[in-house]
Amino acid sequence: MGLMSEALAQVLIPLAAFIGIAFAIFQWFLVSKVRVSPGNDNRIGDRLIEEDDQELGINGEEAVAKCAEIQNAISIGATSFLLTQYKYLGVFTAVFAGVIFLFLGSVKSFSTKSQACTYNTGEQCKPALANALFTTIAFLLGALTSVLSGFLGMKIATYANARTTLEARKGVGYAFVTAFRSGAVMGFLLAANGLLVLYISINAFRLYYGDDWEGLFESITGYGLGGSSMALFGRVGGGIYTKAADVGADLVGKIEQNIPEDDPRNPAVIADNVGDNVGDIAGMGSDLFGSYAESSCAALFVASISSFGINHDFSAMSYPLIISAMGIIVCLITTLFATDFFKINNVSEIEPSLKRQLLISTILMTAGIAIVTFVALPSKFTIFDFGDQKVVKNWHIFFCVSIGLWAGLAIGYTTEYYTSNAYSPVQELADSCRTGAATNVIFGLALGYNSVILPIFSIAIAIYVSFSLAAMYGVAVAALGMLSTISTGLAIDAYGPISDNAGGIAEMSGMTRSIRERTDALDAAGNTTAAIGKGFAIGSAALVSLALFGAFASRAEIKTVDVLTPKVFIGLIVGAMLPYWFSAMTMKSVGSAALKMVEEVRRQFSSIPGLMEGTVKPDYATCVKISTDASLRKMILPGALVILSPLIAGTFFGVETLAGLLAGALVSGVQVAISASNTGGAWDNAKKYIEAGTSEHAKSLGPKGSDAHKAAVIGDTVGDPLKDTSGPSLNILIKLMAVESLVFAPFFAAHGGLLFKWF
Amino acid sequence: MGLMSEALAQVLIPLAAFIGIAFAIFQWFLVSKVRVSPGNDNRIGDRLIEEDDQELGINGEEAVAKCAEIQNAISIGATSFLLTQYKYLGVFTAVFAGVIFLFLGSVKSFSTKSQACTYNTGEQCKPALANALFTTIAFLLGALTSVLSGFLGMKIATYANARTTLEARKGVGYAFVTAFRSGAVMGFLLAANGLLVLYISINAFRLYYGDDWEGLFESITGYGLGGSSMALFGRVGGGIYTKAADVGADLVGKIEQNIPEDDPRNPAVIADNVGDNVGDIAGMGSDLFGSYAESSCAALFVASISSFGINHDFSAMSYPLIISAMGIIVCLITTLFATDFFKINNVSEIEPSLKRQLLISTILMTAGIAIVTFVALPSKFTIFDFGDQKVVKNWHIFFCVSIGLWAGLAIGYTTEYYTSNAYSPVQELADSCRTGAATNVIFGLALGYNSVILPIFSIAIAIYVSFSLAAMYGVAVAALGMLSTISTGLAIDAYGPISDNAGGIAEMSGMTRSIRERTDALDAAGNTTAAIGKGFAIGSAALVSLALFGAFASRAEIKTVDVLTPKVFIGLIVGAMLPYWFSAMTMKSVGSAALKMVEEVRRQFSSIPGLMEGTVKPDYATCVKISTDASLRKMILPGALVILSPLIAGTFFGVETLAGLLAGALVSGVQVAISASNTGGAWDNAKKYIEAGTSEHAKSLGPKGSDAHKAAVIGDTVGDPLKDTSGPSLNILIKLMAVESLVFAPFFAAHGGLLFKWF
Repeated sequence: MGLMSEALAQVLIPLAAFIGIAFAIFQWFLVSKVRVSPGNDNRIGDRLIEEDDQELGINGEEAVAKCAEIQNAISIGATSFLLTQYKYLGVFTAVFAGVIFLFLGSVKSFSTKSQACTYNTGEQCKPALANALFTTIAFLLGALTSVLSGFLGMKIATYANARTTLEARKGVGYAFVTAFRSGAVMGFLLAANGLLVLYISINAFRLYYGDDWEGLFESITGYGLGGSSMALFGRVGGGIYTKAADVGADLVGKIEQNIPEDDPRNPAVIADNVGDNVGDIAGMGSDLFGSYAESSCAALFVASISSFGINHDFSAMSYPLIISAMGIIVCLITTLFATDFFKINNVSEIEPSLKRQLLISTILMTAGIAIVTFVALPSKFTIFDFGDQKVVKNWHIFFCVSIGLWAGLAIGYTTEYYTSNAYSPVQELADSCRTGAATNVIFGLALGYNSVILPIFSIAIAIYVSFSLAAMYGVAVAALGMLSTISTGLAIDAYGPISDNAGGIAEMSGMTRSIRERTDALDAAGNTTAAIGKGFAIGSAALVSLALFGAFASRAEIKTVDVLTPKVFIGLIVGAMLPYWFSAMTMKSVGSAALKMVEEVRRQFSSIPGLMEGTVKPDYATCVKISTDASLRKMILPGALVILSPLIAGTFFGVETLAGLLAGALVSGVQVAISASNTGGAWDNAKKYIEAGTSEHAKSLGPKGSDAHKAAVIGDTVGDPLKDTSGPSLNILIKLMAVESLVFAPFFAAHGGLLFKWF
Repeated sequence: MGLMSEALAQVLIPLAAFIGIAFAIFQWFLVSKVRVSPGNDNRIGDRLIEEDDQELGINGEEAVAKCAEIQNAISIGATSFLLTQYKYLGVFTAVFAGVIFLFLGSVKSFSTKSQACTYNTGEQCKPALANALFTTIAFLLGALTSVLSGFLGMKIATYANARTTLEARKGVGYAFVTAFRSGAVMGFLLAANGLLVLYISINAFRLYYGDDWEGLFESITGYGLGGSSMALFGRVGGGIYTKAADVGADLVGKIEQNIPEDDPRNPAVIADNVGDNVGDIAGMGSDLFGSYAESSCAALFVASISSFGINHDFSAMSYPLIISAMGIIVCLITTLFATDFFKINNVSEIEPSLKRQLLISTILMTAGIAIVTFVALPSKFTIFDFGDQKVVKNWHIFFCVSIGLWAGLAIGYTTEYYTSNAYSPVQELADSCRTGAATNVIFGLALGYNSVILPIFSIAIAIYVSFSLAAMYGVAVAALGMLSTISTGLAIDAYGPISDNAGGIAEMSGMTRSIRERTDALDAAGNTTAAIGKGFAIGSAALVSLALFGAFASRAEIKTVDVLTPKVFIGLIVGAMLPYWFSAMTMKSVGSAALKMVEEVRRQFSSIPGLMEGTVKPDYATCVKISTDASLRKMILPGALVILSPLIAGTFFGVETLAGLLAGALVSGVQVAISASNTGGAWDNAKKYIEAGTSEHAKSLGPKGSDAHKAAVIGDTVGDPLKDTSGPSLNILIKLMAVESLVFAPFFAAHGGLLFKWF
């Protein structure tokens, strides 16, 4: 046994969750002090903002009123979309919960009799029917928590966007702190919530399961499935929504009518800003929550059939939760470095400050992992390793978690290098716009492909070390290590769309160019951090999927997945194809929804007199409706592909083919996802690099409207669905297929492979 | 034993090869009757061409002289490039031959003593040093044959291009037959040559090896390695050459100066036409020769350690060669359908005629396979299956070969559907140009991803059936089945670039619009057939690689490649990344070489007075030099990546990681390759669809120079490096890594995994 008693673990985990929630509420309180109502404090220090800078135009009371109005429109749009989406998800969840219960119940023909335990030999375990029921309950809890995470994130983001704009009048540092604090609210709420619900569920399930930890943690895997299946629709639906609007708005606004981004005359502008919140914020929140829930479930499941579970060592079992608890505390300290210990006075300090967040949290967390590992884990124990029990020492686990954490940092830094316009890749990309859009696209695709190399080596090293040291438990805790700083990761990630919205509001409320320049600088850094966030999401998804894959293999009692057998190999090659099929669907959805949007925007420009002159308001609502309808309709097929593939493979082809399918989808999907996000991020920033014109080189390519800039806009538009729809959805594809296989493993093992049985 | 005696096999194989060569020479003779000299027959039936159509302009003697001049320039450019390239390849070949000899010789410390056979227990086999020597010789023979295949193909293509142009004056049918016959010359020469050299090598090696067939067919694997390593540089170097010139020419010519494609005023136009011959013809020839050589070697190697080899049944051993021999005869008959049995009178008949070729050859070949199988193979025998011997019946093998053949047809037809402008995918793509280049690129990428689905299912089914029926021998002969109609495949594939060149020559020699329209129609069909050819190349590469992978596993005495072990898994994920790394390099090379080309072309337009007016000739030679230098310099790094990856993985990480690497590269590379070729082919034809304006829909998007057309040109330019450089090179990446691993397997098994030995 480790040093930590069960009682202490039972206190510390919820305590950390409550601290996280309290910190989030405090950050929210600080943000709320920026008032979006006539009483807004238009002062910097003692001076009124207007007095300070005459040319700022309508930056006073009128600006505040306008900001409030736009913020309100965005918030209403986002809320109404999410609520509509949740109706669809409600139907899906109910049906899928039924499927889970029926499939798992059928494993032992709905028998209510206790059964002999599989691993804890000699003991009696609860009936399979109970596992079916509790898995279904866990699934529902996971789904609910995921939806809540996304919704709260969106609420906070739409609460913060106008406040960031208003603070930008005081200076870039003020705006940065507001946006970052709001991101932190989301990050901490999500991490703390996820931990708390999981913790309570485990304890509640224990009331029934008692000492049957096999059944208990088998059921808990449903939590991961619930989280990820909501994330899938959140990412895909939100991704289509946001990019249909964005691409549609850009194609007519920027390219045809030559009006700036986020111009209030553009009918699609509200839909575009709503999209940032439902796609990048709510979708990302659900996604990372899913990763967190899944890696915890994978680690818990493997632990439950290892010595921790068999010896009923609660503190050691709770190790994944304690790591997350420590992560909340570490991130709390890290956040203070951004908001209190250092001040941002200059645009050029934004990116380094965000980068510093990653480094600080990683260093602190390494120490945190060491403490948790040596306190919570016994010095020596055994871990289940596909039929064997492998002897592991606690410092092995320390290395597993740490290497996951540091691999995350390496991925984050690589992503930054490839997508930030401070480095040569994006600058070269911008330079290729000289010869037009074609070379920009060619170089952009090549850049994305290149950006895959280092992350894959990082992931491979993390996998090799953790897998060798502690089998699949090692991989699962490596994933948890990468996600342990999730609060900080989400904070810097959510910061991006909030700044993007802030820029939109500045433009729409008619603020002056200098304000817009500040929000643009925030936004450029935000593109990079969004890419970093996606990098984390993908890296952790790779580790999580492998851990889930291992847990699935354990649960389906597969001992080898041999590529040199036809069943596995066809799974592997078809699995490697699924990310392409999925991307084809999502990209085409964005494309065709964008075409509809273009037609509507063109129609409004040509048929509403006074629109171009700004005397009449466009019909924002129709554009919102086009995005909403397209995203809800078009999320069904890709969703079905992901949900049905493992079910079909497992039921008709059996567990070997399914194992191949998961491995293929994992190793292929991670490449497509990384290259897609980074290509898109780089194109976006190459465009911003030309627009900002902060160096001689950038000036020679610009200004806005030059041929090189037009080429850059085309690249940016192509990148939109890559980086915000198909790329990030692929994380969920690989995770969800794996967790679904894990949950349904007993069914496939009992009844799977029908096709081979028939022939 | 089967029905066929060794003596009969020894007669039939070379006989078929000689028939193939004779047929190729006869086709060449027919093409040569079109004279590119003042005596050219300017008549259709009895009438002179000029009399018939006054408005045709310079279609008489002057046209012939101009054509001859341009053909000469292209031929000189292509020959001089290939000869320069061969100097580099000579150095590489010499060094690599040394590496092969040293590595393989070191396995048994350069001992000259005989050793006990591995599979043929109780017998004595030749020393490992002899295997090292003969492998090196086979490598050199393979390299030489590959280079010869590419070179001859290029010679024929440059011989045929102007003749096709001249025949186009008589009608589209005449031009089609000339282009197709020339393709057939290449197809038959290559298939017959490859078979003959392999046949002679086996018999020559037998003089030394006698009854040691293990050693004999181990050494023969070097032939495949030689073929593929030349193909790699041919594809990459040629691909960079052709696309640097093409992209460079288009960016300035079509987009900036608004002059047509292939306009003689464009300084890069000769380089562009040379590129078609060195990239699409010589590169493709080497590539498919490599596939053919490798699948034969893989089948022969597996057979040699199965009952055929152990019982010394020569006819059964020669089964792969007899299949190829039968293929030559079948393709010969098939060719007559295109050139003699049916006549092309109309543009719209071209594509159906080419498609019919695929179908006819597949149906005839199925019968051919049945005959060969029941005559050459015993009714029951055993095949080596990773340690076991699996009992197989001859009709199992019939199914294996046939399913490969029909999977090839399915891939060909799917490719046609996605890349021909007769079907909705390309028409939709053209339609998306309405809203600009960005939507065109988004839809094009989605189209490419979509086009992966059916080919992958076809490959998966072929693999499952052949693998289940006859282990890796089944997969190897399935690959041979797909390649058995290689002569027809190459004929319709080579037809593409020949027509493309013919169009270029028509434009440059100032022929009238109606002639150009005919060559354009040939060319549009050629884009589709080129895509089909690439589909075949990729599909066969997937099967070949798997067969080689299996042969490697057998030779390295690996019994399982278990994804659930860290060594294999890291190989898998890194292997899946290699196609991206490779594509990043090749695409960037094309991009940067194209930028240089653009600068040079711009320089010439601005500094040479009278160029735009057509009174002064541009400096073609400098552009040729830019393409040559870029392609030779830039082929080294991607080449090194492919050659070194298996060596590093095997030497430092061992055979398990290497096995993972090969599997990962295979399942990921095939997706990237298919989507890249099809996306590029579709963009090219979407542009041609708008230009041709043959339907109401197409007319509404055109004409040339419209906004939609400009967007289509951007897509086409982006697609160029995808479809002609990175996409097709990936076949070779996966094949070459596998065959290299097979050749070096004894070395890795003996000395590999250094890193794990050290730690």
